Order: sequence, then C-alpha cells, then structure tokens
Amino acid sequence: MEKRVFNFSPGPAMLPLPALEEAQRDLLALPGTGMSILEISHRSAKFLEIIEGAESNLRKLLGIPEDYHVLFLQGGARLQFAMVAMNLLHGTGRSADYILTGTWAKTAMNEAKSQGGIRVAWDGTSLNYTRMPRQEELHLDPNAVYLHMTSNETIQGIQFSTEPDPGQVPLVCDASSDFLCRPLDIRKYGILYACAQKNAGPAGVTIVIIRKDLAERSPADLPSMLSYKVLAEAKSLHNTPPCFCVYMVKLVTDWLLQTVGGLEKMEALNRQKAALLYEAIDRCGGFYQGHAAPESRSMMNVTFRLPTAELESAFLQEAKKRDLVELKGHRSVGGCRASIYNAMPLEGVQRLRDCMLEFYEKHSR
Amino acid sequence: MEKRVFNFSPGPAMLPLPALEEAQRDLLALPGTGMSILEISHRSAKFLEIIEGAESNLRKLLGIPEDYHVLFLQGGARLQFAMVAMNLLHGTGRSADYILTGTWAKTAMNEAKSQGGIRVAWDGTSLNYTRMPRQEELHLDPNAVYLHMTSNETIQGIQFSTEPDPGQVPLVCDASSDFLCRPLDIRKYGILYACAQKNAGPAGVTIVIIRKDLAERSPADLPSMLSYKVLAEAKSLHNTPPCFCVYMVKLVTDWLLQTVGGLEKMEALNRQKAALLYEAIDRCGGFYQGHAAPESRSMMNVTFRLPTAELESAFLQEAKKRDLVELKGHRSVGGCRASIYNAMPLEGVQRLRDCMLEFYEKHSR
Repeated sequence: MEKRVFNFSPGPAMLPLPALEEAQRDLLALPGTGMSILEISHRSAKFLEIIEGAESNLRKLLGIPEDYHVLFLQGGARLQFAMVAMNLLHGTGRSADYILTGTWAKTAMNEAKSQGGIRVAWDGTSLNYTRMPRQEELHLDPNAVYLHMTSNETIQGIQFSTEPDPGQVPLVCDASSDFLCRPLDIRKYGILYACAQKNAGPAGVTIVIIRKDLAERSPADLPSMLSYKVLAEAKSLHNTPPCFCVYMVKLVTDWLLQTVGGLEKMEALNRQKAALLYEAIDRCGGFYQGHAAPESRSMMNVTFRLPTAELESAFLQEAKKRDLVELKGHRSVGGCRASIYNAMPLEGVQRLRDCMLEFYEKHSR
Repeated sequence: MEKRVFNFSPGPAMLPLPALEEAQRDLLALPGTGMSILEISHRSAKFLEIIEGAESNLRKLLGIPEDYHVLFLQGGARLQFAMVAMNLLHGTGRSADYILTGTWAKTAMNEAKSQGGIRVAWDGTSLNYTRMPRQEELHLDPNAVYLHMTSNETIQGIQFSTEPDPGQVPLVCDASSDFLCRPLDIRKYGILYACAQKNAGPAGVTIVIIRKDLAERSPADLPSMLSYKVLAEAKSLHNTPPCFCVYMVKLVTDWLLQTVGGLEKMEALNRQKAALLYEAIDRCGGFYQGHAAPESRSMMNVTFRLPTAELESAFLQEAKKRDLVELKGHRSVGGCRASIYNAMPLEGVQRLRDCMLEFYEKHSR
C-alpha cells in the first residue's frame, strides 16, 4: 500500500482508517447485495438501513431529542447559509441576528442578505477575529427570527467554548468545523448544520439537525430542494441522496461510537491533541505567534505565525519531510494552520509538536 | 469477493467494473499523495488534476465547444429544475415553454412555477406518455425564455430520437437518464444537465453544460450556490465540491474513452442491448406489453407489463434467481422496467432476454 501521511488539511480532512478500510473492502459489493454502495438504489432496504443507521448513530452520539429532524442534504454549509434565511427569514418582515466571529460567519451573513433584514449582534472585525464574544458583549434583538453563530472559525482558529444564550430566539449554528468534536446540548439549538468533510465524512453531504416546529415554517413556494419542510417530510429521500457520502457518515459514526467510545472520550482526546500544540506555541517565547486569544483557542484549527515568511516556508518544508502536510494557513490570512480534527491521530500531533520544538531550537538562536 | 449481480436499477445504477476496481485499489491513498480521495483538499494540485481531467474527458466525448462551461454541482437534477428557472426565468416578466413527456418533465415544470410564467408546448398526458411529440405537434412560443425538454423519461421508458427544433429559443435539456449514451451536438443546447447516477458516476454530483452567455444572466441577488454565474466563474470550486463523486466521473469517462472507445461505440452497444429486449417483447405475441410506442422506445429504460400481476411477480422472482435484480417498475406506474445504462454488460441483457423468452414459453400455453 502507498504510505499514508498526516494530513492537517482544514477540510476535506483525514478520516478514521477503519472507516476507509471497511469502505475499501466492500467497494465492489456490499455484503448481501451483490452491488457496490455506488450502485445501490436509494429506495432499497439495504440503503434505508444505512441512512437510518447514520441517523441513529448521530442521535446516540449527540443525544438528539425526538422533536428534531436529522437531515442529510447536499450543497455544503454554503447552501445552508442561504437556506436558513430562505426558510425562516424570507417574507417575515423581521430580521435575523448574526454574530460576526470570522470569515465564515461573515460569509453566512452575506448569503442571507438577499432574503430579509440582517442585524449584526457583535462584530469581531476590529479585533481581527482573535476571539469569540462574551455574553455581555452581544447586542441581541429579542424579536429576531433567529440568532446565527459559527461555533468554530476554521480560518482564524477560534472556537466558542460554550453557546451564547440567545434568550427566546432560536439559535442557528454553523458547526461545520467542530461538529462531533465534543458533546452538545442539542436543546439549545433551533438548527445546527455541518458539512461533513471535517469530522463526519467526505465532502458531498451536509447534516442538518432542525427542531421540527422550525421545519414547518418553510414558505410554500420554495423550490422543493430548498425547503426544510419538504426535505424533512421525505426523510432526506425527496430526491436521490448522495448515497456513498451518507454511507461514509455511517462508518465514521460507527467508529466514534465503537472505537472511540462516544463524544466525551473524543473531546478528551481532542483537548489532549490541541494542548500539545498550544503548549509548544507558549513554550517558544513568541517564536510561534498564535492568532487566537487563549480563551478562544480552537480545538480543531491551531493557527500561528513564525517570525518571517522565510521561516514559515522553511518550517512547512521541514514538516513535509516528516510526512506532516497541508499546514499552510488560509490564503486570506497566511501563516500556518494545523487542523487536528477527530480523525487526526495523537501520533500525528506529537510529531508536529516535536517538529515545532526542534525547528524552534534550530532557528531561534 | 462477494458475487456481483446484474442490477437493472433505474439509478443509482451499475458502474463500469474497471472504474470501481480503480477506486477500490486507491481508496486508502491516491498514488503520489499519501491520502484518500475522500481526504484530499479540493484546492490541491492532485484534485485539480482530477476535476480538470473529468471536464476534459466530457469535452472530448461530447465535443463540447469552448463557449460552454462544464460544471460539477450538487443537488441532483431536481435542484436544476429550480435553478434553471431561478437563473433564466425569474424577474424577466416572460415565460418558459415546457414539453410534458412524462413524470420527470412534469416535475421539472412544477419546480419552475414559482419563478415565473410557464407555458406547456406539448402535453403527452392524454397519450399516457407513450411517445415523444413530433416537431409539428409542438406549440412553441418564439419569445419563450427557454424551451425545456426531457430527453429520456426514465419512468415511462420513452426517449427522443433527436432534439426538437426550438427555433431561436435556447433549448434546456434534462438529460439525466441518457447522458453519454450517444453522441450529441451540444451546439443545439443552451443548457444540458444530468445527475450522474445513471451513466456518469455515483449519486451526489450533477453535471451542467451551459452556454457561457446564458451563465451571465443570473440575477445578482441569487444566493451564490444557486447562481450559474458564480459557480461557473469559480469553475465548480465556489465551495467544496463532492470530490469523490467528481473522481468517479473521471474514472467512468476514462472507461468510456479508453475501453469503450467513445460515444459512437457506446451508442452501438446500447442499441444492440435495447434491441435484444424489444425483440423479445415483439416476439412473444403480446405476452409482454411494452409501454412505449415503437418510435419512442428508450435505449436506457425498457418498460413492459405481463398479462397479470401474479405473472409479473413470478417473473421478477424468476429473474432474481438468475441474479437479474431491480426489475420492478416505478411505484407510480407498476409493471417491469429494465434499465440498461452504459455500464450494464451485454451479458446481463442477454440473460434477461433469455429469462423473458423462457418465462414466456413456460407461462404462455
């Protein structure tokens, strides 16, 4: 087999090896069917078992109550940015609140603008998106249709440690880049959505967890593929779903349940991995400059700069020699970024930590 | 390995075995990357090579001119039903013509209704959708924004033998279920779109071939994921595309080019396969009742009924014993349906033909 590397990409990102191995083993024919998962009818008993299994795994992992739908949709988080507003905001004559915590929160807000009124509940721009807001800093509209938040900003590397309190307003959360990294109280959310390609599966499927009463609000004249109501009533089978991607979500959540042992354990491991890198940053006396304020440091995306562009480039080269790849920061902000999602093994993070410390030793004197 | 069956499903459907085998071989690590195609960044050089390769293959196979975009989108043909109207019809104050040839044409029209005026250019309802219209039967509006057609009706099993002449109006075609089954003159089309899960790949990616000037018409206030203009300018990378599905389109089109030898050869094989089944229908003196009028018989979906529901059920059981599966007709019309897309081997069709003839021999006396 081709040697596998440690892939610190922000997404698509590493997947658990046991999930990849099972998919590979069965790719020509799923047991008992004589067909590939790529060929099987989405109306077949076997596929229904798979999609219901993926939903059931998610319900177990997150304790999702019965009065929430779990949907498997297409179009990524970016289509959700629009769909949330098309379904809940459009035609209400009211406005929605957005917490601007970084690049993705801002993008989510911009996609909603054509659908109705938008209010900014907090804006981290002047802080260069280095931290999440405190509750008392939020200017919340008690009549907002919803309050939108981004639980983790992949590009800036900052993460909410806990949800803001939205009062009586439904909280809508883009959890794309920290979904399944820790337990959540789903009851705090009206809608929680996440593209799969960080912690849940491959690119091509988006998971939407939506309180059932909110899915009833979709305007009747929305195209069916954009209507939460239609998609929920059809249990994600209004049209042919991305069957293979749903299957991978099933395998990844099997791994979370059976191998990792649930989200408490996953969080403990994620905290351990993140601590290794942040401790390395803190130990090197400013050689590595973390972007995030300590209280908002992301467990998923560790962003930092080196003293010069030349050193950054040399560092990336040194890492690559050690099979540590995709560590370049987002083109909009530069620097370095280590994305250490659920499936990144502890060993990969230890190797990166060692690389950081040794590179510092060599270049700091 | 688990035994593979002949899968006559209308989609998702059989894929070429060499494409499945290559995907399986490389699933843990794409050569030269150390990562799975499920993990690779959509901005990486390797993925750009894959998506550009898929586009280049499609351009070669169909002779797509330079003034057309080839897009890889999400949401299936059903989202295209809405997007076509959102991008071209909405806000024009004009109307679009629809040719109602079956279930899918009607669904396409219904999804467009909320976006502007709709005219029916021909309606096959009273014929029970048994044939496609002749050119002189079409009531075309020369001022229509576009004329929408469905090249093959999967449920009814009827197919246009050639494109209707739309005059100066752009022709928009849902080619989901016969895309790549034969050569086409793309210049006849304004937009040609197809979900992948019949002839082009797995469910989860939709191919849109659109004349560049039409992609310029998208209203500025459309959410970006619904705007042809935005998606085309970003070369299908406005957000993370369904990377694995695009990769499979690359492998399937590699097979079409290298193993099959192009669309002329594919069409010849498809005609040969379809003829085997229609000849069996015609030879059995009315025991098998084809749904389609002979001039509109589909090369892709062969629909027929047996004299009684009991015989249909017995026939399906007999076929299953011979590893010929998914032959039940769509729930809305009943009967039997053999979907014989590109990747269905001649051997599978021969076996089905034999099954039909032997079943007739046994039950017709």
